[in-house]
Amino acid sequence: MARVVMKFGGTSVGDVARIARVARLVAAERAHGRGLAVVVSAMSGETDKLVGLARASGEGLPPEQFDDEYDVVVASGEQVTTGLLALALRRLGIPARSWQGWQIPIRSDEDHSRARIIEIDGAKLAASIDEGVVAVIPGFQGIDAFDRLSTLGRGGSDTSAVAVAAALEAERCDIYTDVDGVYTTDPRITSKAKRLERISYEEMLEMASLGAKVLQTRSVELAMAKRVPVRVLSSFVEPGEPNPGTIVCDEEEIVEKQIVSGIAYSRDEAKVSLLGVSDHPGNAAEIFGRLADANINVDMIVQSQSRTPRAVNMVFTTADRDAQRALDVMNAARDVIQFEEAQVKRNVSKVSVIGVGMRSHVGVARAMFAALASKGINIDNISTSEIKISVLIEAEYTELAVRALHTAYGLDAA
Amino acid sequence: MARVVMKFGGTSVGDVARIARVARLVAAERAHGRGLAVVVSAMSGETDKLVGLARASGEGLPPEQFDDEYDVVVASGEQVTTGLLALALRRLGIPARSWQGWQIPIRSDEDHSRARIIEIDGAKLAASIDEGVVAVIPGFQGIDAFDRLSTLGRGGSDTSAVAVAAALEAERCDIYTDVDGVYTTDPRITSKAKRLERISYEEMLEMASLGAKVLQTRSVELAMAKRVPVRVLSSFVEPGEPNPGTIVCDEEEIVEKQIVSGIAYSRDEAKVSLLGVSDHPGNAAEIFGRLADANINVDMIVQSQSRTPRAVNMVFTTADRDAQRALDVMNAARDVIQFEEAQVKRNVSKVSVIGVGMRSHVGVARAMFAALASKGINIDNISTSEIKISVLIEAEYTELAVRALHTAYGLDAA
Repeated sequence: MARVVMKFGGTSVGDVARIARVARLVAAERAHGRGLAVVVSAMSGETDKLVGLARASGEGLPPEQFDDEYDVVVASGEQVTTGLLALALRRLGIPARSWQGWQIPIRSDEDHSRARIIEIDGAKLAASIDEGVVAVIPGFQGIDAFDRLSTLGRGGSDTSAVAVAAALEAERCDIYTDVDGVYTTDPRITSKAKRLERISYEEMLEMASLGAKVLQTRSVELAMAKRVPVRVLSSFVEPGEPNPGTIVCDEEEIVEKQIVSGIAYSRDEAKVSLLGVSDHPGNAAEIFGRLADANINVDMIVQSQSRTPRAVNMVFTTADRDAQRALDVMNAARDVIQFEEAQVKRNVSKVSVIGVGMRSHVGVARAMFAALASKGINIDNISTSEIKISVLIEAEYTELAVRALHTAYGLDAA
Repeated sequence: MARVVMKFGGTSVGDVARIARVARLVAAERAHGRGLAVVVSAMSGETDKLVGLARASGEGLPPEQFDDEYDVVVASGEQVTTGLLALALRRLGIPARSWQGWQIPIRSDEDHSRARIIEIDGAKLAASIDEGVVAVIPGFQGIDAFDRLSTLGRGGSDTSAVAVAAALEAERCDIYTDVDGVYTTDPRITSKAKRLERISYEEMLEMASLGAKVLQTRSVELAMAKRVPVRVLSSFVEPGEPNPGTIVCDEEEIVEKQIVSGIAYSRDEAKVSLLGVSDHPGNAAEIFGRLADANINVDMIVQSQSRTPRAVNMVFTTADRDAQRALDVMNAARDVIQFEEAQVKRNVSKVSVIGVGMRSHVGVARAMFAALASKGINIDNISTSEIKISVLIEAEYTELAVRALHTAYGLDAA
């Protein structure tokens, strides 16, 4: 039997009326004759409430004494939704049952509160689905090798849905969200943003990690690894209304490739510059090793020649909240790393153009720089990958830059 | 290792501060060197909230389509408390972990929403407890033979605690409640009510089923069957303060047996009288079979000779809310049962004196009737068992009767 996985987030199941609407959406999908698994989050607000209770009860405990029981508390939110949705489906005359993570089972590692799914045994689940029973599954939760409850961390329900789809060899994983698809850029910045019909896994990964919060990054990685077609669509349409969404799929399945598919941006960045860094082997490893040890994520690394002989300038970006700490870590290691000066520049944004078409087209970068220059926007740093070009600019120019690039690459809606 | 089970109800774990106090009570008990299992209810109000959600989502579904997923929703409340208490214990430096019903496992039958515990495998639990780890266990929940979640019905956490105590061969099961023990009668009726140091299972069973709401009836039955000593004590004292409670135990372990241990009462009763009932074999079975089919609980059955030849009067009591329905059921079967008249008398109360000492003492009934007569209270019906005498009286005399009997049997506090 062909199977489809549907996933609904916290706002889509926020109260009993919304759960009833989700049930109607499931009923409409079921009319197409597919076997269905529905992955649900906790009702909106519930996870926050449970996290608050756990933090209050376990105040001051180190993670190794806190995270396992935190998972026990927080995982209960999804359990509630599964039971409620199964009931709502039965009211529509649809056979349905809830499956908790431990009943399937969904096996994860022991990294409580941010566990990763290791394996899902889809056998029992598939057998029940193929009998026509809709399986309602809690996102976000699993069990570790010791049968203790685990949770995947915030946003983990997307990953659960993709993992369930892979285990069920589903033909599609539909992620219902509060937007109706993936857009060429943030519609709050330009009304000319367009919904994409299709986007490749690689592009979506860049879009997700660059701040377009439609899909959780890990879920896209997993979908790409397992070749699960994912569709992002709206949970706020009535059943039967058009709701095509955006399909995230293999590059080969996209016939009309755009050179640039979208413009992403990320605020709250900071630029850290180490000037006159001694240019000896292993020094870069020293710098970024120390930052990694301090759990500071680093992006956009650029090394250039310094005015000082046998020295380089090393520039990188971090999240704004980590910038001061990065500076402290560097200054503490000044004797080892040997540099003349360390600076931080805050209030910068990263703006990126993304597209698999870049691989076969030249001039994409030139068009970007020209578009920014025409608006008088100064570029502070540049980094590129095969399918994206990112620039660092003053934060106050973010919207202007996004709109200029959206127009320059022909993405504006007619 | 000697083991003790402690049980805390919903009000005792009603918020984070109360859970922290429960943790201190557990710490104080642990200082006595026993291995501990702690059974907890959902935080007060949570179960009502979850029941409301399940009823709203499953409105109109028949029980066989509702009860299993209702259990999934409602069982989550206890899960939350187990995680929170485990965290609160660890904050006091006490090794602790939560065990969900399915992790132990606690096996129940498939009678969802009112399941009965069939078996608890205490092996893993005992091993962990004997390593010094406090086991925190959700009351009220289990799993059926198909690994589906089940719940035991309201008040089921007392039963869970006793069942866990039996599985762990615990030396005692301490039930912490909002009262500091079992009283000779309801302290709201007479300030002379005394806390009992000990009471036998049989007496407690009569007290519980007669309206003293301290312990759930089924938990006392189970304790009696498994010979688990149960102690009822207050959860609202600070750790270290005296808190002896009342021990519910085998009759043989009570050295100073009272003739009468307590006075119980039950309001909201109704008396149904069938007058001139045809006295043919099987007619009583007909009457009470029909009432049972209509799910009407019947108590205090008295049959007496009617003035009509070859006829009897059949008098019984029901809950007041069932009285009209009982009358309707009887009238509908009038042709089969054959009686002259059916009457209902509402606003009656049942008052009972209870004591295992009655078995070896005469004159207990006479003392009861004399005490009631001296206050001018008319007796409407009488029923007796080996260890109790119950009378039906006008409801407005309830408090007067309880106080008179409390004094007559020498139960008044000095």
